[in-house]
Amino acid sequence: MPLLALGTVAFDTIHTARGRAERVIGGSATHFSYAASFFSPVKVVSVIGDDFPDDYLRLLADRGVDVTGVERARGQTFFWAGEYNADFSRRTTLEVHLNVFGAWQPRVVAAHRAAPFVFLGNGHPDLQARVLAQMQRPKFVCLDSMNHWIVEERDGLLEVLKKVDAFILNDEEARLLTEESNLIRAGRALLALGPRMIILKKGEHGALLFADGLFFALPAYPVENVVDPTGAGDAFAGGVMGFLARANDVSFPTVKRALLRGAVIASFIVEDFSLHRLKTVRPADIEDRVRRMEEMLCL
Amino acid sequence: MPLLALGTVAFDTIHTARGRAERVIGGSATHFSYAASFFSPVKVVSVIGDDFPDDYLRLLADRGVDVTGVERARGQTFFWAGEYNADFSRRTTLEVHLNVFGAWQPRVVAAHRAAPFVFLGNGHPDLQARVLAQMQRPKFVCLDSMNHWIVEERDGLLEVLKKVDAFILNDEEARLLTEESNLIRAGRALLALGPRMIILKKGEHGALLFADGLFFALPAYPVENVVDPTGAGDAFAGGVMGFLARANDVSFPTVKRALLRGAVIASFIVEDFSLHRLKTVRPADIEDRVRRMEEMLCL
Repeated sequence: MPLLALGTVAFDTIHTARGRAERVIGGSATHFSYAASFFSPVKVVSVIGDDFPDDYLRLLADRGVDVTGVERARGQTFFWAGEYNADFSRRTTLEVHLNVFGAWQPRVVAAHRAAPFVFLGNGHPDLQARVLAQMQRPKFVCLDSMNHWIVEERDGLLEVLKKVDAFILNDEEARLLTEESNLIRAGRALLALGPRMIILKKGEHGALLFADGLFFALPAYPVENVVDPTGAGDAFAGGVMGFLARANDVSFPTVKRALLRGAVIASFIVEDFSLHRLKTVRPADIEDRVRRMEEMLCL
Repeated sequence: MPLLALGTVAFDTIHTARGRAERVIGGSATHFSYAASFFSPVKVVSVIGDDFPDDYLRLLADRGVDVTGVERARGQTFFWAGEYNADFSRRTTLEVHLNVFGAWQPRVVAAHRAAPFVFLGNGHPDLQARVLAQMQRPKFVCLDSMNHWIVEERDGLLEVLKKVDAFILNDEEARLLTEESNLIRAGRALLALGPRMIILKKGEHGALLFADGLFFALPAYPVENVVDPTGAGDAFAGGVMGFLARANDVSFPTVKRALLRGAVIASFIVEDFSLHRLKTVRPADIEDRVRRMEEMLCL
């Protein structure tokens, strides 16, 4: 089933202990949609500046990502520069320029408004709400956010959370929003905010799922060769949502299987900068890691 | 099959956000043996002072733990006082007095030397080596250690590691010993030190298992009500070793099932101070959480 994703298409400059990448393709909608494209067609809602190369956009289009909803505005594309410490446990934002994304008024292309699966990528809660309001009758809406909005736009975030089915966030964000240090309590507290499903990402420790009074914990796929974790969370979400859209089902057992795909996609993206590693991945490579992980987890 | 455990039987004074416990029964051999006793008979090798109450020792004996190898020496019992920060992410040792444990020369009771399963609890590597040397032909030896010995007695630790089958340690210790921040790499580096099996504990994030060229990741049992994490690691090890001793098998699939038992026992012990919660646990309670966890993990 069609899947629509709101988020940034951006330039990233990244420093890690393993190297440096300058103005590579990045952004939440980029990582999300590229990852989801392995499972389902995706339509992106975003904005880029006149400095964004066609080649970069073609990377997505070549994966079957529908980029007709990516507006081109006069000005510069969203830019983020960041740095990781040696063991990747801390990330520092060196620069962030919203550029054309800052003043953007999103308009969902008419043909995309019927998409039953919707991902509202990390951004201002008002922007997320504005895109959601344009959708017809989505079957399953998943929202991502980050520390900045939890602190600066808490009320707006709480408002939009009441309108979505699932909330995906990391452990640090969950603790910040709920003021619960215990992640199981945090998960329950998040459910009380409105969404019927909480997906709590823990990086190298995997993810937790809370829904339907049930609980599931998935370890991360074991990766030895981490080069750059940028985009892992968005690619994880892309794998999950892509799989759900393909299955056209959001029951608990299907979501568990979807999380497994998310973990596998995330395991690839961290092995190189930007989309470099994902570009070399074939569906058979994904199935191979999914099978390994199923064997690994089986009791 | 008989299981022998070396470790401390001690007094603990503990402060957590949930309360305070004064001179309660603690020590690695206490937590380990009480946990293991749900699965297998255990013989403890330890030393206590003349201040240690018979009632405390009876707590273990009543669970079928063989305490005939617990020597009583003149002087005071090992004492530890510690404090946890509000979210249990950091522990501070306030006081530690080895007391009679400091000068102890362990002597394994003749009748216990044939035990095929051996747990060398956290302690000076020479002490661990001296106990191991007294065993006849153990089938499976598992060693625990801690930061202090990794830093202060590295050579001795590396020496004794060559003689054991399994090494159980936490993520922080693994990183310290291997200087690898990536836990998958750390696991491989630890295997290269001699043991054929590495069990890497990650607290609320569960545990990783490396052996036979295989890998397994187990999440923790979800606990909302954490009162005191003291002894969780030892109780986890006790559940694992108790289950292996009962199964008399250390194949990879059995170790996976053993880790599940360890996680369940650890989930109980953290719900109160000392052995308070474990004392109320019946085998059916354990089986109940094991079943829940199996259902939870099943893909």
